[in-house]
Amino acid sequence: MQYDFSNRILNSKKSFIREILKVTTNPDVISFAGGLPNPATFPVEEIRAASDKVLREAGAAALQYSTTEGFLPLREAIAQNYKDKKGLDVSPDEILITSGSQQGLDLIGKVLINQGDDVLIERPGYLGAIQALSSFEPVFHSVALNENGIDVDALETALAAHRPKLLYTVPNFQNPSGITYSKQTREAAANVLKKSRTVLVEDDPYGELRFLGEDEPSFRAFLGDQAVLLGSFSKIVAPGLRLGWVCAGHEIMEKLIVAKQASDLHTNYFAQHVVYEYLAQNDLDAHIRMIREMYGAQREVMVSAIEEHFPKNVPFTRPEGGMFLWATLPEGCAATALFERAIQHNVAFVPGDPFYADDTQARTLRLNYTNSDEGAIRSGIATLGGIIKDYLAEI
Amino acid sequence: MQYDFSNRILNSKKSFIREILKVTTNPDVISFAGGLPNPATFPVEEIRAASDKVLREAGAAALQYSTTEGFLPLREAIAQNYKDKKGLDVSPDEILITSGSQQGLDLIGKVLINQGDDVLIERPGYLGAIQALSSFEPVFHSVALNENGIDVDALETALAAHRPKLLYTVPNFQNPSGITYSKQTREAAANVLKKSRTVLVEDDPYGELRFLGEDEPSFRAFLGDQAVLLGSFSKIVAPGLRLGWVCAGHEIMEKLIVAKQASDLHTNYFAQHVVYEYLAQNDLDAHIRMIREMYGAQREVMVSAIEEHFPKNVPFTRPEGGMFLWATLPEGCAATALFERAIQHNVAFVPGDPFYADDTQARTLRLNYTNSDEGAIRSGIATLGGIIKDYLAEI
Repeated sequence: MQYDFSNRILNSKKSFIREILKVTTNPDVISFAGGLPNPATFPVEEIRAASDKVLREAGAAALQYSTTEGFLPLREAIAQNYKDKKGLDVSPDEILITSGSQQGLDLIGKVLINQGDDVLIERPGYLGAIQALSSFEPVFHSVALNENGIDVDALETALAAHRPKLLYTVPNFQNPSGITYSKQTREAAANVLKKSRTVLVEDDPYGELRFLGEDEPSFRAFLGDQAVLLGSFSKIVAPGLRLGWVCAGHEIMEKLIVAKQASDLHTNYFAQHVVYEYLAQNDLDAHIRMIREMYGAQREVMVSAIEEHFPKNVPFTRPEGGMFLWATLPEGCAATALFERAIQHNVAFVPGDPFYADDTQARTLRLNYTNSDEGAIRSGIATLGGIIKDYLAEI
Repeated sequence: MQYDFSNRILNSKKSFIREILKVTTNPDVISFAGGLPNPATFPVEEIRAASDKVLREAGAAALQYSTTEGFLPLREAIAQNYKDKKGLDVSPDEILITSGSQQGLDLIGKVLINQGDDVLIERPGYLGAIQALSSFEPVFHSVALNENGIDVDALETALAAHRPKLLYTVPNFQNPSGITYSKQTREAAANVLKKSRTVLVEDDPYGELRFLGEDEPSFRAFLGDQAVLLGSFSKIVAPGLRLGWVCAGHEIMEKLIVAKQASDLHTNYFAQHVVYEYLAQNDLDAHIRMIREMYGAQREVMVSAIEEHFPKNVPFTRPEGGMFLWATLPEGCAATALFERAIQHNVAFVPGDPFYADDTQARTLRLNYTNSDEGAIRSGIATLGGIIKDYLAEI
């Protein structure tokens, strides 16, 4: 059978990370490549108790078809959390439960993007967002990040030049760079955006995982319903449950619900009950504090190891939270060439290439610290430091 | 904020059924409108035991991120089931786990349809398929059904005229009509399709729920990888778990996996473990026999009640399985007008209108018999028969 595939799928690259992760399944490899939360943090016993309670008490009702919007008590809990932690006035009607925040991106693309529409993304930007939005065949334009977040002048220029449908951002502990937008940057970017009709997408999977510094306000505080927020239980409860949400104003929410219904009717209803019950019976904030402490310690070990073992001309970010840091090799280097050398020595990372919508030869690397123990971080970074020094000596 | 929505979402109608179901939440309404399986069939206690076992034994591994394709043992079980029950040689690599078969449709649209591509659908056709595929802005063409399935001459004409990307079918106990394709129709349709490059989509949510007659072969037996099959645990286990699958040849499967990853990374991994464990620990076939007996009895009650109470000039289908039957009012009638009258008397059904990609004023109605008890079916059909008689007398 010869298939006549759609252009969108013919133009989509095979996931680079997916290919890399195949190499790293070898148990001898110390991998900083994945983006996995540490499974030691998953509240397995609490989820077991919650599942048991849901099936004993709600029973068949938790296994039936449900509304597209999602389980109301869970949406109420999410709205309340926005109020309590961010001071945002969010109604449960403004919350749509999705199959992970990745699906939120797919739905936002569906309701906003026509083929050829312009879309802005951070540079470097989250690969999953590039993949999700690519399904709707936009033209991507990158806006540089600096240490305080998005470059507001570059943003203003891009908004004027392209009148983009949306700007995709990860303002807290960005994937891949680990950078956090300062309050000043948020405010300045919001002021520029207000003059446009561009929707600001704030993806915030790691926001609660801050181990240094103070929380910054959400873009919704500045932009109201011009900001669409994505959230997820993947990093604070467990990712295998695939539970995320979109928080958006009523007018766009109505369209998102139509798109969600067409995409998969609704999100797993049993899982929604289970996570609601888990939240009701447990102290999520205490659980999050435990995750923060663990990841904060792992981050600390990686930062010290890099300071010790990497050459001084390889700067790297020192994230205040989240799961990743980001290192930059000197000019003339290629991260993929370094990757080939590293994997020979059983160390893996993600070369920066797939995080650029517009580039191919990157000299940046993403390093994950949440899914390796401290010994593995020390030894893997020491090995990698040696490989970098050898590589720099040879080119 | 004024949003610049995509054309696809501006052109998508609000779900007619969704609106109707809102009216039927009144507990006094006898509703034949929904498409819900009977919750009395859900194996609640067995799912509870399976959840418990998964979290005690697999633990955190069942809550972690997973591969896009899905949990291998579950995919192996599905492939084996195709072998055992249909004699189809299916490899686990040809199975992709999706968030219900609705998501399978979304993914098929993503990988095949460019804006303006031609797509064939049965007339009447499954509303959810029209909604899912509409996201990719095809031009729909309808091919009539007769009592033996798709009209093969009309199909041949449509294939020649439009060279469509795909033909969407529900060959067993079709939604909405209850019609089943005969073996002769399947073979003849396959012979016509073989001369084309049109992908045949066989959606089979109800195939195991046959209470009369003999199973018919899958289109894959005739078409090989020109046929893409959709399956679901929604009607044989429980729909709230949102577990379905696509069965497709390797070349298109590779694209479907890329599309799935962009859409939501992977399906709920915990739910995949739970259903696999449920299948391993229980006799699914015995469970399916119980559902068949229940639905067969409900169907019998509805057919007899219609024979007793509907006027003779309102023919209806006598399905051999599945969840729906389909009645046709005389010319000059409008199903929506009948609906308005029926709801005044606390009886609901779905007017045929949303099941036509090309029509608006339908005189057909879909009646669901699986989610009402026998008393409600008798009394609701008696009421509806009276309303139809009054309506026919007045127009």
